[in-house]
Amino acid sequence: MSKKIKAGILGATGSVGQKFIELLNDHPYFEITALGASERSAGKIYQEAANWFMTTPMPEKVKKMKVQLCEPGLDCQVAFSALDASIAGEIEKKFAQAGYFVISNARNHRYEKDVPLLVPEINPGHLDALAMQQYGKGKIVTNPNCSTTGQVMALKPLQDAFGLDAVHVVTMQALSGAGYPGVPSLDIMDNVIPYIGGEEEKMEKEPLKILGKFIDGQFINAEFKISASCNRVPVVDGHLEAVSVKLKQKASAEDIIRVLQAFKPAFGELQLPSAPKKPIHYFHENNMPQPRLLRNLEGGMAVSIGRVRPCNILDFKFLVLSHNTVRGAAGGAILNAEIMAAENIIR
Amino acid sequence: MSKKIKAGILGATGSVGQKFIELLNDHPYFEITALGASERSAGKIYQEAANWFMTTPMPEKVKKMKVQLCEPGLDCQVAFSALDASIAGEIEKKFAQAGYFVISNARNHRYEKDVPLLVPEINPGHLDALAMQQYGKGKIVTNPNCSTTGQVMALKPLQDAFGLDAVHVVTMQALSGAGYPGVPSLDIMDNVIPYIGGEEEKMEKEPLKILGKFIDGQFINAEFKISASCNRVPVVDGHLEAVSVKLKQKASAEDIIRVLQAFKPAFGELQLPSAPKKPIHYFHENNMPQPRLLRNLEGGMAVSIGRVRPCNILDFKFLVLSHNTVRGAAGGAILNAEIMAAENIIR
Amino acid sequence: MSKKIKAGILGATGSVGQKFIELLNDHPYFEITALGASERSAGKIYQEAANWFMTTPMPEKVKKMKVQLCEPGLDCQVAFSALDASIAGEIEKKFAQAGYFVISNARNHRYEKDVPLLVPEINPGHLDALAMQQYGKGKIVTNPNCSTTGQVMALKPLQDAFGLDAVHVVTMQALSGAGYPGVPSLDIMDNVIPYIGGEEEKMEKEPLKILGKFIDGQFINAEFKISASCNRVPVVDGHLEAVSVKLKQKASAEDIIRVLQAFKPAFGELQLPSAPKKPIHYFHENNMPQPRLLRNLEGGMAVSIGRVRPCNILDFKFLVLSHNTVRGAAGGAILNAEIMAAENIIR
Amino acid sequence: MSKKIKAGILGATGSVGQKFIELLNDHPYFEITALGASERSAGKIYQEAANWFMTTPMPEKVKKMKVQLCEPGLDCQVAFSALDASIAGEIEKKFAQAGYFVISNARNHRYEKDVPLLVPEINPGHLDALAMQQYGKGKIVTNPNCSTTGQVMALKPLQDAFGLDAVHVVTMQALSGAGYPGVPSLDIMDNVIPYIGGEEEKMEKEPLKILGKFIDGQFINAEFKISASCNRVPVVDGHLEAVSVKLKQKASAEDIIRVLQAFKPAFGELQLPSAPKKPIHYFHENNMPQPRLLRNLEGGMAVSIGRVRPCNILDFKFLVLSHNTVRGAAGGAILNAEIMAAENIIR
Repeated sequence: MSKKIKAGILGATGSVGQKFIELLNDHPYFEITALGASERSAGKIYQEAANWFMTTPMPEKVKKMKVQLCEPGLDCQVAFSALDASIAGEIEKKFAQAGYFVISNARNHRYEKDVPLLVPEINPGHLDALAMQQYGKGKIVTNPNCSTTGQVMALKPLQDAFGLDAVHVVTMQALSGAGYPGVPSLDIMDNVIPYIGGEEEKMEKEPLKILGKFIDGQFINAEFKISASCNRVPVVDGHLEAVSVKLKQKASAEDIIRVLQAFKPAFGELQLPSAPKKPIHYFHENNMPQPRLLRNLEGGMAVSIGRVRPCNILDFKFLVLSHNTVRGAAGGAILNAEIMAAENIIR
Repeated sequence: MSKKIKAGILGATGSVGQKFIELLNDHPYFEITALGASERSAGKIYQEAANWFMTTPMPEKVKKMKVQLCEPGLDCQVAFSALDASIAGEIEKKFAQAGYFVISNARNHRYEKDVPLLVPEINPGHLDALAMQQYGKGKIVTNPNCSTTGQVMALKPLQDAFGLDAVHVVTMQALSGAGYPGVPSLDIMDNVIPYIGGEEEKMEKEPLKILGKFIDGQFINAEFKISASCNRVPVVDGHLEAVSVKLKQKASAEDIIRVLQAFKPAFGELQLPSAPKKPIHYFHENNMPQPRLLRNLEGGMAVSIGRVRPCNILDFKFLVLSHNTVRGAAGGAILNAEIMAAENIIR
Repeated sequence: MSKKIKAGILGATGSVGQKFIELLNDHPYFEITALGASERSAGKIYQEAANWFMTTPMPEKVKKMKVQLCEPGLDCQVAFSALDASIAGEIEKKFAQAGYFVISNARNHRYEKDVPLLVPEINPGHLDALAMQQYGKGKIVTNPNCSTTGQVMALKPLQDAFGLDAVHVVTMQALSGAGYPGVPSLDIMDNVIPYIGGEEEKMEKEPLKILGKFIDGQFINAEFKISASCNRVPVVDGHLEAVSVKLKQKASAEDIIRVLQAFKPAFGELQLPSAPKKPIHYFHENNMPQPRLLRNLEGGMAVSIGRVRPCNILDFKFLVLSHNTVRGAAGGAILNAEIMAAENIIR
Repeated sequence: MSKKIKAGILGATGSVGQKFIELLNDHPYFEITALGASERSAGKIYQEAANWFMTTPMPEKVKKMKVQLCEPGLDCQVAFSALDASIAGEIEKKFAQAGYFVISNARNHRYEKDVPLLVPEINPGHLDALAMQQYGKGKIVTNPNCSTTGQVMALKPLQDAFGLDAVHVVTMQALSGAGYPGVPSLDIMDNVIPYIGGEEEKMEKEPLKILGKFIDGQFINAEFKISASCNRVPVVDGHLEAVSVKLKQKASAEDIIRVLQAFKPAFGELQLPSAPKKPIHYFHENNMPQPRLLRNLEGGMAVSIGRVRPCNILDFKFLVLSHNTVRGAAGGAILNAEIMAAENIIR
């Protein structure tokens, strides 16, 4: 890659948009060349348009960049979409039709029959679906919901080694998952909210596509049952999930820990800049994984698992933690773009 | 009850001990006449011995009361035990042997074959076991672990109406459940700790005794499977639990809501001062129950349930909330003593 | 008062409006007969219009009450205004002109030359200004900003005993002071925001009117300097203020503690339902007052003070705590109405 | 520096000790060669002795290192002391007498007449006092209390430009300042504790030495008045301070901002690895500095200041933020050692 690929960010002023900017700053493959946002921000320079609340300073190079409307014509090859689902569907489609590579974090196109719902370590083969996408040169690739990401990363090695029969998951999800302004402090201080709109449905549906196959031109979903209960807890970043699984084959807790630790990304030896050295870190301490201590492991791209132990109802239970705005949103999307660049799909 | 029953508090300076004092202040049945604590506090007046951190002022009448050692000889008929499990077993036994009614919040005697593990709304018949207790006039009665209390209160009406086959529960438990000083703030601020020592074992074991029967001089445990996963969240008071149940008989979500709402305490028309008017409050809002909003319902003695809905793996799932230091500890113990007084066991 | 006074609440669905409803439920003087809100809510019953988030259940009697527009014609004598300052000025004026007693928590009319800025314990004589108000039978009375209330309650006894020369105050203010939805959780979790719009100005201005006099038909402001710095901290309720004072006369720390403890409300022997038995509670412990432990003292109507000690720059420093939505908002306004009823101004 | 200097850590298992290890990992000057702790830990390998709670993984190289007692004989030239004040005084003295360079974070030796209380950007000349220290080759150098560090960094440019007459400071301090386990969560969740033992005294005393001079073999304290009020807030890291200053010379807010922004470290062009590029960052936004957003600026070594504005009582007021365990503890101590190495005092 002698020259960097031009990247635009759609929804650049919001929380996921800011995270995209933070993570794409000094990226070896991509260079931010365009920032898209709503009418309220368009026309302003980024520094004035965005209420920056990342914990690293706003990169110098975007400060004076002019924010534009989210319309084809933006000077970029790849459009990272941090758009809200209420508008993402239409806009992303227009960008794909206009020949852009759309790397979307929005839910709108995830279930379409020619759109990969991609986690590079798990289902890079789903990129084959791009060949049949309706957009010509332009493409849409999506990453899963933030709470799905940790879930499927933990399930993949188990599916491969033992087969999956049923998955019961109860989440304790971070505030940043709701965007900004998101959850009012009066609602969540000294409290838990046992409901997140649409989240349980996504967690019960998305893993079946991700852990399924793309064969003969179509996606074949995995077949196992999922029950998800989603809760919001007063944690800034990091979704923690209490998972119970029923396996198709007999296994011991040691077997499970072994396959989790041995997990290798499905993309093999490819060196992707944002890919964690180890996608899954297993912790033997009895009180791990904890969000505040482990969410930033490998820059927030690794998933932490602990407490594999028998479940009296299904077979085994454990906890999985992943960083919801990095691994589960902007970082995951960037990794999707990286594998597409490495495989010369984006060029 | 023309004259109040003399009540002592064992472990009076700790967090549960303070809650006992708060709840027994101006109690219609009981009068605090003795305060027991460790050697460090014995000999001091209570005001100096206790680091009071209840949110109501320390009752005037205990301020100048002398703290004594936890040894038989205390001037009381009933001894409410807020002792730590590391010492509760032996001390409570001595008090029972000396003829005291020991109402214990500790775990030590809960599983003994002649000791009721009592929740008055659920298993008042278990008090029959007292007739065969080894202590003569003295008696030991226990209440369950704080996280078990909400769990069994939700399960009882389901067991009665439909039978229980399996119960999967994931908890989000409050800080006050760990006592004082308990959880260091650096461990739990902006964090969740997915482990509470011994808690999962208690939640998998205690409900079987509570929801079982006392017949022909022995306890017959209920027979269903329980899987519990326990987490500590940054909430001051109120344990929230995500429960999934498999029932023996077919039921609809409406059926379940109906039996929860119709639940009547097993002690019938008895008027007990601390008993909530309705033990179970069902909330139809899609984001309830929430700890901060509902933990103090009916003085913290009622249990809140919401979100009954189908579970893809077991049959139904829902959330239950109860106040862990009131309903799940001191308040529950006092209710135990109240039913014993009302039934003339304590007199 | 043989019959209750009809009370309406303007802005009934917001956070202060809800607190008014909670505190006026079963009030001995007032009966809620009208609920006013914006066009979005008008026409709905209250239960459907309000996102109730008080920690006590919504009173039965308001659940089915129809919400109306905030326009004269509401069936009430007293209109408690919880309106936002952006609209309060005009609406309150219309109600006063129409003959209502407007008891306002909004800032709009506070500095007017014929409007009392009233704290009954401090300046009940300011009610004399009502005689010259322009509205005829209707009247407007205001209570101060939530952070001013604790401040002036602490300053009044010092002013009376020693005279005030300068007051330096740094606040740590609760989330509920910002209303609902108010402060986004992502802004305040694990954080402090060292700015609250307009707050420092109010704290530097309002005390001078409150602690001033109403003589010969006009308000004469107190004359001392105030410097205020306002911070938002992650606390649900209760504003804590670190105050340093320079006095006109020499005093010792003991003198100050003595006059704080001896403080008696300026309204004398009047028995007002919401008035605390002691407006100021002084705490000798070295780590008090703390918001979570003391904010609800006397139903949230008393002010807590502690740590009076010498200041190396001004004379003395101490901490004062008051409940911002009770004493500093709805409760304070209700107390204002109570003294007006007790003095037959409202009748 | 062809070869790295051997560094030991006294009190290596505690929170500041862990931060030393984190910051010294891969340090260009120093190499960790010894770990000292109490009898409880001595003899174990570090991995087993320490309850690691940093948010970066434990460095590989210390995991298997044997923890030893804190006694001279440890294989190192520099001993970084993270010892508790209850024992630090004596142990540090023994190490100095045995010829070690003791870089201490403890308070014990701070006020001694031959011991520098060092902040390299401010008073590097105080290192001259080492020549007259009683310990021969061994030396003791201390860094200030965590809350003093931000305070003096903000005051230094003002002192140089305008002279200081009086400083009034109210702190909002983070939990990590209390060490581990430190503040119980039940004490600080949804709360502020307006007291930190010994802290106000340190903040009123230490700046006078730091901002004073070392002339003719003795420390001459700066002469201005300081009043400090210290509060603990529910924030993990980052001490925020509301400061008011009275200056000797007239200045405008713009003047003050200008000198803050222009501040250059007193150690001139020396390149020290841990020194921030800019010791002071000034923020023009009206709601900065905020702990969660800015505490990690320049690796936690820079100080953030904002909201310079007139004070009605003193001359100006502003807010200053610094990372209490990095800049205010381990990082500050390491910077002290770096300047000593760069100036060939440590060699």
